[in-house]
Amino acid sequence: MSDKALTTRAADFSAWYNELVLRAELADYSPVRGCMVIRPNGYGIWERMQRALDGMFKETGHRNAYFPLFIPESFLHKEAEHVEGFAPEAAVVTHGGGKKLEEPLVVRPTSETIIYSMFAKWVQSYRDLPILMNQWANVVRWEMRTRLFLRTLEFLWQEGHTAHATHDEAEAEARQMLGVYRTFMEEYMAMPVVTGLKTQAEKFAGALRTYSCEAMMQDNKALQAGTSHNLGQNFAKAFDLTFQSEAGSIEHAWNTSWGTSTRMIGGLVMTHGDDIGLRIPPKLAPVEVVIVPIWKSDEERSRLLEAAQRLKTELTGWGGRGEDRIRVHVDAREGIKPGAKYYEWELQGIPLRIELGPRDLANNACMTARRDTRTKASLPMDGLPATVAGLLDGMQRDMLTAARERREAHSVREPLSYDRFRELMEGEGAFVYAGWNGDPAVEARVKEETKATIRCIPEPEFRTPNGPTTCMVTGEPAQHQVVWARAY
Amino acid sequence: MSDKALTTRAADFSAWYNELVLRAELADYSPVRGCMVIRPNGYGIWERMQRALDGMFKETGHRNAYFPLFIPESFLHKEAEHVEGFAPEAAVVTHGGGKKLEEPLVVRPTSETIIYSMFAKWVQSYRDLPILMNQWANVVRWEMRTRLFLRTLEFLWQEGHTAHATHDEAEAEARQMLGVYRTFMEEYMAMPVVTGLKTQAEKFAGALRTYSCEAMMQDNKALQAGTSHNLGQNFAKAFDLTFQSEAGSIEHAWNTSWGTSTRMIGGLVMTHGDDIGLRIPPKLAPVEVVIVPIWKSDEERSRLLEAAQRLKTELTGWGGRGEDRIRVHVDAREGIKPGAKYYEWELQGIPLRIELGPRDLANNACMTARRDTRTKASLPMDGLPATVAGLLDGMQRDMLTAARERREAHSVREPLSYDRFRELMEGEGAFVYAGWNGDPAVEARVKEETKATIRCIPEPEFRTPNGPTTCMVTGEPAQHQVVWARAY
Repeated sequence: MSDKALTTRAADFSAWYNELVLRAELADYSPVRGCMVIRPNGYGIWERMQRALDGMFKETGHRNAYFPLFIPESFLHKEAEHVEGFAPEAAVVTHGGGKKLEEPLVVRPTSETIIYSMFAKWVQSYRDLPILMNQWANVVRWEMRTRLFLRTLEFLWQEGHTAHATHDEAEAEARQMLGVYRTFMEEYMAMPVVTGLKTQAEKFAGALRTYSCEAMMQDNKALQAGTSHNLGQNFAKAFDLTFQSEAGSIEHAWNTSWGTSTRMIGGLVMTHGDDIGLRIPPKLAPVEVVIVPIWKSDEERSRLLEAAQRLKTELTGWGGRGEDRIRVHVDAREGIKPGAKYYEWELQGIPLRIELGPRDLANNACMTARRDTRTKASLPMDGLPATVAGLLDGMQRDMLTAARERREAHSVREPLSYDRFRELMEGEGAFVYAGWNGDPAVEARVKEETKATIRCIPEPEFRTPNGPTTCMVTGEPAQHQVVWARAY
Repeated sequence: MSDKALTTRAADFSAWYNELVLRAELADYSPVRGCMVIRPNGYGIWERMQRALDGMFKETGHRNAYFPLFIPESFLHKEAEHVEGFAPEAAVVTHGGGKKLEEPLVVRPTSETIIYSMFAKWVQSYRDLPILMNQWANVVRWEMRTRLFLRTLEFLWQEGHTAHATHDEAEAEARQMLGVYRTFMEEYMAMPVVTGLKTQAEKFAGALRTYSCEAMMQDNKALQAGTSHNLGQNFAKAFDLTFQSEAGSIEHAWNTSWGTSTRMIGGLVMTHGDDIGLRIPPKLAPVEVVIVPIWKSDEERSRLLEAAQRLKTELTGWGGRGEDRIRVHVDAREGIKPGAKYYEWELQGIPLRIELGPRDLANNACMTARRDTRTKASLPMDGLPATVAGLLDGMQRDMLTAARERREAHSVREPLSYDRFRELMEGEGAFVYAGWNGDPAVEARVKEETKATIRCIPEPEFRTPNGPTTCMVTGEPAQHQVVWARAY
């Protein structure tokens, strides 16, 4: 690991991000262009994300399944918008077992087509509905410009797929899962999101309506961190997914799909990282507490290692959080000075450090250092597990509050001129809440002129009460209030 | 679901297997030749398997990571035996993003090459060793004859990959993981395995030594259910994976890899299934207990549904198994008779059924039916959680015992003539423990003449004390005692 300080966020946000991801050993470049290796420090965060999301999916009645990696090329072509969106990014298998294939296979960029072709086989009557499934899988999209976690040829994700008897049920499902994502991003990632509806230009290829979660990164650009689609009957019609209704008629089913990916790890870094390194919200930290024993002599060493182990046992054995035990690591490595260890754990973003030296032991106390605020405090050993759990809880809350305040400080809710808007987008960036006349041509023009896009039409509860009533660009009556920003 | 009885195992084992997998909704055929869909009933078992194995990997110090799906074709060619073994089965991506690739990419059949190329980047000194990693991933091998779970083009697996400073450390690691697999297969799958060393002809392409777990299916054929390889320095040399030793010299590292896959679900079916359907060992059952409330009138219905829910709450709330709560489902479906529900849950292999009718309620009791023995017993409600947990424990043990007895009844440990051996292999099948002179030509001849292969040279602890000292085929002095069988 290099001892050179990270490039600061202020100096070069993009360089800071890449350095942090590499140095904290979250991920690395691979020999295959655009494909990354997710290293254990990064994968451990993904495992925590998976665990939380998977639990929420199951609580809402979904079951996991697994569908093939390969999709016959002809399947992509069955839904007109879908093929237009995904065919250009396809990775194509043309040979297998030493022979040219009769029909090329596409490595799945998303699985609507293959999954709904199976649903069509399984569904006969309204009694077979709803189907509520999810899969954890890898997908491939042939991107030209890639960034670790944010945009890679291959990434890991989950994709939920459901089938329903009515439009309203599908709509309720799509909205429910948007809510699940919002809850996850706020309560686990400590990353506030604006949720809302995508415009027709920005929706998923093949969807009726797309909803998304939009988070603000520290460079004031937006990151789309999760999407939920009401697919209408588009795929059901393309794949003959029909059912006999209770009344006896044959109808097409209504589908939804919804996904989040390893991209969220990039979002975590760009939401919480600082110039020292990563800061992981406690709930997603594979290790919440690292204990660093400090010794000078051999006698001290064995005494302090023992005390550190005892403390770990006490912390992990504490039942005050129920089954969710405090996750603790003892850094007992030899030949590395405590200061170097602190540096490493701060770079990696472990929420709480406990330093344990001979004097602490004598005082029946220990020194703690919070990663979020970098404040240190000596705490008594008595009742330490509850104190630590309280600190971690507080950190989780504080990180969300800080991120929300940051975002609000860079959100513009007052009417502003298009000139001022352009200035903002070319300068420091922002989430701009503004009126839009609903014309896709205006949307396209703004994108071309400012690189900003409509991130979403925010859900009612996020509308500025006295929001703009005229279109920021044309001055015409606004059809929607929208959120503009440049995005990853 | 078809009401026709399953083909019996005795009538046609292979047809029985396919029917069971499809009807119990474990998996289904997909539109892509040789690729299967793992349905929620099958995937739920895989999730239980993953959870148990993943815990054991972490307890032995391994961390999860994720490496790319695609491998540059040239990488496969760097290790001579490896390319010979895997190139013929490769699925090849030749086009990406609408363009022909400069170098074709192989969809990983296994990840030694890409992983050790990364290890080479990360390892400088002996201080960076050992590296202990695992990944959960999909892999593709272009098989011509496929069977659901047993042999499919794409399958899900885990592959552990480690790097060590010495041969002995790598050897100890390979043996340790073989032991982990054995423990998992016996304690979770209730599937006894013979563990041992593969012959040179049967080892992994590129390994120094391969160890395997061999289970006996109910048709007396062997299923290789997990392998662990000491890769020696073969890949380290191919990918320049070197380190500076403590003494200052530059040396090649020693690698191991080890894997188990969704094939184990096929092994579970063929070990425990009966003519009624699947039987899942309780530890791997996503649902251990299904409660079927029985009612005639509406008044009874609401009373019994309520009682069933109360019972579920009592069972799942019971803390006698610590964090591992009893997994319970209430089958409250309307319009399906209790008998039809029993049939379905027996087909799916849920370990314990609880029937709850008005009379049971009046007697403060319930009727239980074990799936393994199909024995029924009325049990008092008082203390039911502990009774149920005891029943499930007993079932788990009994299933292992029964499978072990079955295997031993079809294992031949007494010396036998090659003629009798051929008869056995062409007839009912068996695990035959016999002497072998160590000559690969003899091994090849037996394979051609009988389709039986040497499954392994069993570990010392499994040797028959007074085992054969002469080669079964040639009568020459035996170099090894080996286990012969036909295999999947």
